[in-house]
Amino acid sequence: MIGHDVFPVEPWGVREKRLDLGLIAETESVFALANGHLGMRGNLDEGEPRGASGTYLGGVYESYPLEYGEIGYGFPEDGQAVVDVTDGKIIRLLVEDEPLDVHRGCLDEHERHLDFRTGVLDRTLRWTSQAGRSVRVRSRRLVSFEQRSVAVIRYEIEVDDGEPLRVAVQSALLANQAPQERANVDPRSASELKNVLEPCLSTQHDHRVVLAHRTRRSRIALAVGMDHEIEVEDHPKSLTQVDEDLGRVTVSALLEPGKPLVLTKYLSYHWSSQQSVEWLRDQVDASLESALAEGFDGLLARQRRSLDAWWTVADIELDGDPELQQGLRFALFQMLQSAARAETQPIPGKGLTGSGYDGHAFWDTEAFVLPVLTYARPDLVRHALRWRHDTLPQARERARLLGLRGAAFPWRTIHGEECSGYWPAGTAAFHVNAAIADAVRRYVMATDDRAFERDHGAELLVETARLWSSLGHHGHDGRFRIDGVTGPDEYSALVDDNVYTNLMAQSNLLAAADAAERHVDVARELRVHDEEIATWRTAAHAMYVPWDERLGVHPQDQDFLQHARWDFEGTPAEDYPLLLSHPYFALYRTQVVKQADLVLALFKRGDAFTLEQKRRDFEYYEGITVRDSSLSAGIQAVIAAEVGHLDLAHDYLAEATLTDLRDLRGDSANGLHIASLAGAITAITSGFGGLRDHGDRLDFSPRLPERLPRLSFPIVWRGLRLCVEITPTEACYSLDACEPGEGDEDADEPVMTLSHWGEVFQLRPGQEARRGIEPAPKDLRRPLQPEGRAPRRRGQDD
Amino acid sequence: MIGHDVFPVEPWGVREKRLDLGLIAETESVFALANGHLGMRGNLDEGEPRGASGTYLGGVYESYPLEYGEIGYGFPEDGQAVVDVTDGKIIRLLVEDEPLDVHRGCLDEHERHLDFRTGVLDRTLRWTSQAGRSVRVRSRRLVSFEQRSVAVIRYEIEVDDGEPLRVAVQSALLANQAPQERANVDPRSASELKNVLEPCLSTQHDHRVVLAHRTRRSRIALAVGMDHEIEVEDHPKSLTQVDEDLGRVTVSALLEPGKPLVLTKYLSYHWSSQQSVEWLRDQVDASLESALAEGFDGLLARQRRSLDAWWTVADIELDGDPELQQGLRFALFQMLQSAARAETQPIPGKGLTGSGYDGHAFWDTEAFVLPVLTYARPDLVRHALRWRHDTLPQARERARLLGLRGAAFPWRTIHGEECSGYWPAGTAAFHVNAAIADAVRRYVMATDDRAFERDHGAELLVETARLWSSLGHHGHDGRFRIDGVTGPDEYSALVDDNVYTNLMAQSNLLAAADAAERHVDVARELRVHDEEIATWRTAAHAMYVPWDERLGVHPQDQDFLQHARWDFEGTPAEDYPLLLSHPYFALYRTQVVKQADLVLALFKRGDAFTLEQKRRDFEYYEGITVRDSSLSAGIQAVIAAEVGHLDLAHDYLAEATLTDLRDLRGDSANGLHIASLAGAITAITSGFGGLRDHGDRLDFSPRLPERLPRLSFPIVWRGLRLCVEITPTEACYSLDACEPGEGDEDADEPVMTLSHWGEVFQLRPGQEARRGIEPAPKDLRRPLQPEGRAPRRRGQDD
Repeated sequence: MIGHDVFPVEPWGVREKRLDLGLIAETESVFALANGHLGMRGNLDEGEPRGASGTYLGGVYESYPLEYGEIGYGFPEDGQAVVDVTDGKIIRLLVEDEPLDVHRGCLDEHERHLDFRTGVLDRTLRWTSQAGRSVRVRSRRLVSFEQRSVAVIRYEIEVDDGEPLRVAVQSALLANQAPQERANVDPRSASELKNVLEPCLSTQHDHRVVLAHRTRRSRIALAVGMDHEIEVEDHPKSLTQVDEDLGRVTVSALLEPGKPLVLTKYLSYHWSSQQSVEWLRDQVDASLESALAEGFDGLLARQRRSLDAWWTVADIELDGDPELQQGLRFALFQMLQSAARAETQPIPGKGLTGSGYDGHAFWDTEAFVLPVLTYARPDLVRHALRWRHDTLPQARERARLLGLRGAAFPWRTIHGEECSGYWPAGTAAFHVNAAIADAVRRYVMATDDRAFERDHGAELLVETARLWSSLGHHGHDGRFRIDGVTGPDEYSALVDDNVYTNLMAQSNLLAAADAAERHVDVARELRVHDEEIATWRTAAHAMYVPWDERLGVHPQDQDFLQHARWDFEGTPAEDYPLLLSHPYFALYRTQVVKQADLVLALFKRGDAFTLEQKRRDFEYYEGITVRDSSLSAGIQAVIAAEVGHLDLAHDYLAEATLTDLRDLRGDSANGLHIASLAGAITAITSGFGGLRDHGDRLDFSPRLPERLPRLSFPIVWRGLRLCVEITPTEACYSLDACEPGEGDEDADEPVMTLSHWGEVFQLRPGQEARRGIEPAPKDLRRPLQPEGRAPRRRGQDD
Repeated sequence: MIGHDVFPVEPWGVREKRLDLGLIAETESVFALANGHLGMRGNLDEGEPRGASGTYLGGVYESYPLEYGEIGYGFPEDGQAVVDVTDGKIIRLLVEDEPLDVHRGCLDEHERHLDFRTGVLDRTLRWTSQAGRSVRVRSRRLVSFEQRSVAVIRYEIEVDDGEPLRVAVQSALLANQAPQERANVDPRSASELKNVLEPCLSTQHDHRVVLAHRTRRSRIALAVGMDHEIEVEDHPKSLTQVDEDLGRVTVSALLEPGKPLVLTKYLSYHWSSQQSVEWLRDQVDASLESALAEGFDGLLARQRRSLDAWWTVADIELDGDPELQQGLRFALFQMLQSAARAETQPIPGKGLTGSGYDGHAFWDTEAFVLPVLTYARPDLVRHALRWRHDTLPQARERARLLGLRGAAFPWRTIHGEECSGYWPAGTAAFHVNAAIADAVRRYVMATDDRAFERDHGAELLVETARLWSSLGHHGHDGRFRIDGVTGPDEYSALVDDNVYTNLMAQSNLLAAADAAERHVDVARELRVHDEEIATWRTAAHAMYVPWDERLGVHPQDQDFLQHARWDFEGTPAEDYPLLLSHPYFALYRTQVVKQADLVLALFKRGDAFTLEQKRRDFEYYEGITVRDSSLSAGIQAVIAAEVGHLDLAHDYLAEATLTDLRDLRGDSANGLHIASLAGAITAITSGFGGLRDHGDRLDFSPRLPERLPRLSFPIVWRGLRLCVEITPTEACYSLDACEPGEGDEDADEPVMTLSHWGEVFQLRPGQEARRGIEPAPKDLRRPLQPEGRAPRRRGQDD
């Protein structure tokens, strides 16, 4: 847990005023900088003390053999783990003969500040050595959104007392750092592979060093370079050294008070599984030249412009809860950091902020992150789906191995192969395929990007539809059933007719049928015949959705409600998360829900339920949902808001939003919970904003809890920017005017069709519409959560 | 597969007339000698060529860490694997300067013969060296049933041509032999641990050597000794050498034609996890002295007496099918070999004939082997159940870890800890607990051994009943349900209300209630209160047994019949066994049955079904049962016979009986299928003999297929020996007369109550009863098995 006092509430950044070594790993995650291609944990410049040093490149992994106590056919043979690549963040300082080390001497002042508008991590400190000499250091670090391979660090040292002082600054590239020893064996943390980088090449020239390596088993080549600008009045003495795993520039200078030494370190990271290291080295040198040409201030300015553009399409304004305002902007900032330049590489569950979950991407990306990006930066969604498309060969092979048709995308992966070492919670979670299809459908609907649909989307839809078609079967009553799969709730597994899975498969089948009919040429190429399309439609229409007449609610899966209820009363608080203190066996066979599953269906397939069903279902599942997954709270917020439990929605919104800024799950040290943060944003847009996108149109049913007087957020839709502003009694929908001269003069003026609480209307650019909002029903009793698992009530203890 | 010509059909032994190196590993299993304490594979005396050298001690294992791709709470951390202990079988021969090696020179004659009446493995050979010199060798090997630590080998060499010949015989003890390299990764074979024996002590004296070792991780001490008698006319020269892992006696002599050298090698094996190696060494020396005193002929005579006694209580006579007659005696011989001196150590799935399944014991012991032994050597059953009782602490701890009450016995183990590395087919198969309870119930019923029930049986019943009571729950309809467990059929897992499991749990609960009421003192000690007994009875009476109205059959588990049928037509023959070519995922979610499960319930809980239900159920499950487990055919034979498919029963009997003599499963190389062989015996007694023992009485409903004119078998019951003889039209039940002077003169004469086709009658010692047998219904259509999985029709191709 990170205490409330660690990061003071402010609207546009995260600030830390005291260095707490007990939170070193957690703050490394919070202060991580990334652009989707390159990620750097917020390690101290001097590299130590540290929780985990981390520099990651999207898509760079090492493979390793997966071991099994008892192997079974089709169990994945190889794991993949994100690699902590060559560390370019390190800048060590020697004050006279003493290293600046926060463990030694005295850290008189300390501040770190991450600014969401500049994208810069600032650190300032005043440190007094054991010999009693004081220096001030200011470092500014950024990972560029504009030049994806580039990071830059400006490091400034000033003497803070009367006498001149000799300092030596050592700027390093360091490969194959040994990981910190760890005691815990939490399955959610990372595999620790050591010494995975095989040296290939190392060069130096003046203050430039380039090191190239290759991963030993996965054979990925990477090259990393650094160059430096040094500004100091004294004529500095410098030395550049290079070794297989180390590049180092040491600069020594005598500093007069008031005359700082400024070292600007430019870094570039390139990798490839195809190109030679020599090619990569050339790329690194070229990128460094461009970065030097741009200069620190140039990079700073371009970073600012990138972020200005982001906030225009993404910023949420939430009045009445400044802590959440901060948290939501943190969440939005992380969306950009994880996806901006990921391009055709995966967006991992932790982004590039830590090695948790081995750096794998899961269904979270498509189910949580992409819906947020769709309405802000759809181009990033297109890239992310291109990555999935690129992995179709692996997914087809996996389906074949499993005896299925089409494509079976992996539960967890970096390179596209299934890496789950426990199939009941991995391979069996086929719903990942429907999440991918749903992301395709949403992207195409929100952008009308028919070229993408033709070239990539249709194939993803067709191959996943084929998977569902072979996964399910028509029972004796003709209904289409999907047996033996695992839904989102990982406290149940290998169930028949998981409602979420069945309903998502239904959409997937229909979306594929529609796409195949729209793109006959693609269909022909994929050998989709009319009969196959007909089987998809038949299966979709016959899809079985179990219903419990006795309780009047939907069972999570066919048998779920027949199971005994988990003994919540007999479960002490320290047993949570249950997966760390109870066997799967006990969890699977009882009514206990790790994370929204049926409730997720109420959201993602809200069109398949009546409001009354949603309310009853939500209230039932509230009583057995323990939220041992960070993916849960945001979704519970959405449905709580829809069915009228607005304060509860606010509570869940807070839990999702503050996941990492307060380390609510106790594992932010391993990296941020990107999908949970996406869930927080969804709790705003789809929860209080009531946004739904089941069809070809955006529908809004906004409503605010009493404590929140105003909310606004933008929505990008087919090139237009809609601004939604909500107050307790009214919603205002305004469409930005088109830029003058934009588009063809003769073209039809664009128009957006949307609905407010079921009333459909149209907006043209520059127009706005105001609509009233009815208050929520007053007589609803707040549903009860399992013993000890109620969310913290917002506003009561804050 | 072992061809029909390899072992000629004979009634009392297995003979091999030609050495086929392609079957070397399989014949090592078939010719293995064991007594339950000590097992020796049928390796050639000279040790090589070999499939796997194997010498095993019941209960001696090494532990090793189990690895997981993704670990979960409660996954067993350590595996246990049977240890190939110090090899005492090796006797190498040098003919002039050339080693006797079947790869070299010429093996002019070869025969091996295992005699079920003497318990001796004979080998005779004539070999001509590359230099053209010929010798005859005869070796006779036995593992004593009387002196459990002792084995003896008589090795006789004779010159087979005119000239005198110098031979050197080397008799060895060899520890830490390197295993053969293997290519396959069949999950059913063994973990290969290397160099697990840590040398502790080695001594020599004359021709005696004793070596003591300790297993490196499990810290079990073992001592092995050999001593020798040498008979030869020439004055032999001999040398005894000893090293940490090797003891060797070399004897060189010049042999005149007609004057053999006879080396008699006495071996003794002791082990302990508590005693010092010095103590064990003393035991070994003492056992060797006793064996020497007995002498080879003495040991031979006692072995013969042991076997005479065994055949009196065990022998089955089956007329009309000599191949099965041989196979059944082989099976019966293996029952004794696996259990005779196992005492309080486990009876593994492979006995002590190979390292398959890591030497683990499974539910097979209680469900298949012990029922056979109960009616022949109930004292061995008492020992086997004492072993389970000894492991109660581990089973209680396992239950606690799983959040359950009572005791959860392991799915696979040697020392009592759960060693399954894949919990859905391991830990979740809780039915092992009911099998233990059922074995207790049967043993007590068949022996009236109230002391055992009081001291050990009741506790086993109570603790397993507690497990079931906490595993299940009363559903909203009041029925008692057991969710999320795995039944005997390993092609389904984590199911709700497996009929076999529920019905076996029902018996277990009632047996525990009865036992607790009979032994109030035990109940008090175990804190069993009346209320607890009442909950057991309530649960048992409310036990849910699903039934499919539409199909008119019992589903294997609640949802089983809703699943799609496996695509048998699309499955090529080489895909079997399916677990080696299809993922669990695909198997679990479809109707495909690895082994009798519902059909096993029809047998073990036959009292819970009508005959018509049995027939319908059997015929339905025939169509989807692929018999990928060797445990299946025997049980299918039993129910096929009961419902009237007598020829089919004969076919299944043959499959179970010939499992190893024909290597029908292709893996007899790893050891014999002890439970399958037990199943063959059960197919006789409970199949054609129609024996059932649901209550306090034995019930028979015998009936023979047309091709079998006569069957007889003995049944030991409460100290009496019943002989059942069956012909197509009549059954004769005769009770042996009591030995004169036996028992108290004043005591009531014993009486046995039994039934024949429902007619209850009594027999006193010396009496016999004859009853007629109605022919089977004629109009039954032979049920169909899945495509390509019909059993071989008996008699058609033989």
